[in-house]
Amino acid sequence: MAVDHPDESLAGVGEFAAIDRLVAGRRQPPWVSLGPGDDAAVVAAPDGRTVVSTDMLVEDRHFRLDWSTPYDVGRKAIAQNAADIEAMGARATAFVVGFGAPGETVTARAVELADGMWHEAELLGAGIVGGDMVRAPQWVISVAALGDLGGREPVRRAGANRGDTVAAIGNIGHSAAGYVLWHNGINGFDELRGRHRVPEPPYGQGAVAARSGATAMTDVSDGLLADLAHIATASGVRIDVHTTGLRPDIDALAAAGAAAGSEPLDWVLGGGEDHALVATFPDALPPGWRAIGTVVDRGNGPARVTVDGAEWGGDPGWQSF
Amino acid sequence: MAVDHPDESLAGVGEFAAIDRLVAGRRQPPWVSLGPGDDAAVVAAPDGRTVVSTDMLVEDRHFRLDWSTPYDVGRKAIAQNAADIEAMGARATAFVVGFGAPGETVTARAVELADGMWHEAELLGAGIVGGDMVRAPQWVISVAALGDLGGREPVRRAGANRGDTVAAIGNIGHSAAGYVLWHNGINGFDELRGRHRVPEPPYGQGAVAARSGATAMTDVSDGLLADLAHIATASGVRIDVHTTGLRPDIDALAAAGAAAGSEPLDWVLGGGEDHALVATFPDALPPGWRAIGTVVDRGNGPARVTVDGAEWGGDPGWQSF
Repeated sequence: MAVDHPDESLAGVGEFAAIDRLVAGRRQPPWVSLGPGDDAAVVAAPDGRTVVSTDMLVEDRHFRLDWSTPYDVGRKAIAQNAADIEAMGARATAFVVGFGAPGETVTARAVELADGMWHEAELLGAGIVGGDMVRAPQWVISVAALGDLGGREPVRRAGANRGDTVAAIGNIGHSAAGYVLWHNGINGFDELRGRHRVPEPPYGQGAVAARSGATAMTDVSDGLLADLAHIATASGVRIDVHTTGLRPDIDALAAAGAAAGSEPLDWVLGGGEDHALVATFPDALPPGWRAIGTVVDRGNGPARVTVDGAEWGGDPGWQSF
Repeated sequence: MAVDHPDESLAGVGEFAAIDRLVAGRRQPPWVSLGPGDDAAVVAAPDGRTVVSTDMLVEDRHFRLDWSTPYDVGRKAIAQNAADIEAMGARATAFVVGFGAPGETVTARAVELADGMWHEAELLGAGIVGGDMVRAPQWVISVAALGDLGGREPVRRAGANRGDTVAAIGNIGHSAAGYVLWHNGINGFDELRGRHRVPEPPYGQGAVAARSGATAMTDVSDGLLADLAHIATASGVRIDVHTTGLRPDIDALAAAGAAAGSEPLDWVLGGGEDHALVATFPDALPPGWRAIGTVVDRGNGPARVTVDGAEWGGDPGWQSF
């Protein structure tokens, strides 16, 4: 989107003029009956239920503006929220965005952020229907996502049964590899470094999994083992991950692992932020999903995740605090 | 809500244990079919449309933890979001909350914040159905509110017609008065100082206004004249405010104005954050609403707001940047 005075700050432009620049010329999908500009937006909920989730990103905690462009950050903020909707078996319809930034933020960078958000929303066929812009000491981006179930029941974390196949679709460990490459200043591996800046959740596959009878599902945001542990705990089962099933993920990271002196399996089991989907299926897997483990009886033990039948001693994944 | 180790920090407790403490024992309303604990929540949308809005509050910009308790801040965050839903003629059904805070934040204070949010949500009969908790250099609270229209059309800012009566319900200028009292260290006037910490939007009156044929509506968040200007601009009309109609508001602030050396009319016309509702009505006003002006032909002039027929030279209201 073009900006008249690209170097002007948000404080110089003022809230309402800045918001005008962020929303001008955007095309809302047909189910948005009222978009930005009023006290609230109105979005169709044909299912009669709305799926809703929220994620907050803080500068230098969840993104770095020296690694990522504002456009990247906008894409990532929408993607990780959309993945939560996908993980229920629903489809994202609309987003609202809270954006905090210093007054001296150049308006063109806020517009870039919004452009990235719209890029990602359009991949989903969704709209950004409202927001709030406030002064803050650093960038803070808070997104809430709405989704529609299309008449299906939500796929929860609880519901996995003994004998189900654990399967995944989407990148696993790529964002973690990209982070280490960025952090250590290792060039090359552009695709992996790009995946750290902008994940690529497998949009549409949440609904596919639901239609294929998935009994439990989540997205890989904290790390594969950490997120599978949420399913294991909610379902009261043990999940055994088979590293043979993760071979394609490990192989994809082998060269980067060698360059960084890291073990690709650690990235695959412990790395988050790729927003792959993992689900449990009693029957045949949908096309494109790969088997990565099984749901087994926990016997007298706690609900937990094992790797090739044994406890895993590595990093358990991302901690918010 | 009781906390086992009240002095422990969020970093010490960890994200998931802290979230467990924030959500334990809360009662969701019947239209929340899935509350916190999964990737997303599921809320009934019986109207077939969802109203959605978001507001972000940043510590030391929108609240001060030396003036307000975490409980107050929680109530305020929900109240100002709920008011946006009310201003569409809808009823708030559910909220999701993003909460950023330093790792050393005492967990009991985060629980107090959640308790305040639940207090306010219960006044509305709504639920807090999900959230995200992250580390941030200062407290940041981002709320998204969902609402249901109950089969009515949304009342937008556009729609005011010449001859409509402009009317209001709820406090006007109280929060601004309370701010000046706090800022100048003037004791007494507990009710006004309390209204700055926790506004009291007139819950339920948005739907009442819609059923009474309101042609345009908004809530007073930035200041009466600033918010009426949004209606005037969206509707392409001039709104003339009658100070005689604001006499009860002015009188309620007279003693505080004298104590602070401030002009109560400035608080009433320029002060925001009370989240009163203002609307335009072609017919009789609903009970409890008071006439504060009329919608008049703008002639060849711009859409704008006048006071007793003349331009007003005072503070135009809150600026975010």
